[in-house]
Amino acid sequence: MAEKALTIILVEPQLGKNIGAVARVMLNFGLTDLRLVRPRDGWPNQEAVAPAAGADKILENVQVFSNTLAAIGDLNRIFASTARTHDMVKSIYTPRPALECLASTAQQGQKVGVLFGSERCGLNSEDISLCEALIKVPTNPDFSSLNLAHAVALITYEWSLQVTSCPSQIFRTGTTTLATREDLGNLFIHLEGELDRTGFLRHKKKRPTMIRNLRNIFQRARLTEQEVRTLRGIIRSLVGEPQDR
Amino acid sequence: MAEKALTIILVEPQLGKNIGAVARVMLNFGLTDLRLVRPRDGWPNQEAVAPAAGADKILENVQVFSNTLAAIGDLNRIFASTARTHDMVKSIYTPRPALECLASTAQQGQKVGVLFGSERCGLNSEDISLCEALIKVPTNPDFSSLNLAHAVALITYEWSLQVTSCPSQIFRTGTTTLATREDLGNLFIHLEGELDRTGFLRHKKKRPTMIRNLRNIFQRARLTEQEVRTLRGIIRSLVGEPQDR
Repeated sequence: MAEKALTIILVEPQLGKNIGAVARVMLNFGLTDLRLVRPRDGWPNQEAVAPAAGADKILENVQVFSNTLAAIGDLNRIFASTARTHDMVKSIYTPRPALECLASTAQQGQKVGVLFGSERCGLNSEDISLCEALIKVPTNPDFSSLNLAHAVALITYEWSLQVTSCPSQIFRTGTTTLATREDLGNLFIHLEGELDRTGFLRHKKKRPTMIRNLRNIFQRARLTEQEVRTLRGIIRSLVGEPQDR
Repeated sequence: MAEKALTIILVEPQLGKNIGAVARVMLNFGLTDLRLVRPRDGWPNQEAVAPAAGADKILENVQVFSNTLAAIGDLNRIFASTARTHDMVKSIYTPRPALECLASTAQQGQKVGVLFGSERCGLNSEDISLCEALIKVPTNPDFSSLNLAHAVALITYEWSLQVTSCPSQIFRTGTTTLATREDLGNLFIHLEGELDRTGFLRHKKKRPTMIRNLRNIFQRARLTEQEVRTLRGIIRSLVGEPQDR
């Protein structure tokens, strides 16, 4: 993880609870390098502890700097997170492509980071001029200001998606497995046999459509072996067969 | 926006400040329909106001329910956000594909929502059984529990990416425009002419490479018209020409 780390730098953060919330969400996404530039209420700050929710290691290892340039001095590449598009000649990225850029640079062994401004004012132009590009989360233009920790959450989430591989969809079946096509075929034969017997499928013309629709319901349900057994038990029960069969 | 809305339902939320933070980030992403099931400290809750940071309309319109089924009754499709993968037969999605699913359903005019559990326990199995699928944010396995409002932030952010169109990269040039290739060519000719004159490019063999490297620097910088004028002024200044030329 150390070789593919993202450094988070908060410039003049005002509220200890936000610093704590930032530490928590950083560790949620496997990040540990948090730096502060001139935190308003000094450091350490007891207000940060509860919102960090156990990310104490991050708080203990926070580095504090008196100026932004010192805080980012060892980094090879730094972007600025901002809600405003300052009147500067800069690239403005949404989080996804920005973190793609930074992650690919990190994968080449270089150190990367994102700079965040204070809750009240964001980053000033001087701090932004130290950064290569801007990251702007696309928000509601009538209510655009994100909570500081929320902004860090979105950035670190996008980072995490870039550097970890996680299947985007899993179908969890618990202790059983998905039914085989044979299991499912036997269920259909069982159900349709009973429905023929009880007269539910008596309309010859409608029969093929009704059967197709019924089969589609159970296909969509992606049944497990256990569930097929349960459904067959239900059919037997509904038709009045003894339960222990 | 109303036709492409995502409903957020919090089941047994404990802390008013989290409800307020949820309201803020919902409005950040253009969402307004927040519902609570059995909020621990009742509703309204004064603790929610400051963290909502002005999203008062959301708080005023919160609907409160005594059970989850009532809270989701009018929705056509509902997913559950959870950190745990309950032992159930369910699809588990990361946020992106989950919100793609929900957004495409919403675009067909149907009502969709995401259910979130309490800060302490998350959702119970009964609530989860009311949902079609699970959404699990891929987090650090050693520190996986997200703050409730952070989880909502990630989900609403992904929703917003699905339903709004936003260019993922803009190169902002302020009040000026990007330099034309002619502007840039004239800058190169100007600079290289002066460097020939001062002897910097005197090594015939190295000259082509040096020129290519120099040109590449200025290509990468993506100069604006104004910046080209500034650089040409700098060249004139450095060689001792009067500034008003």
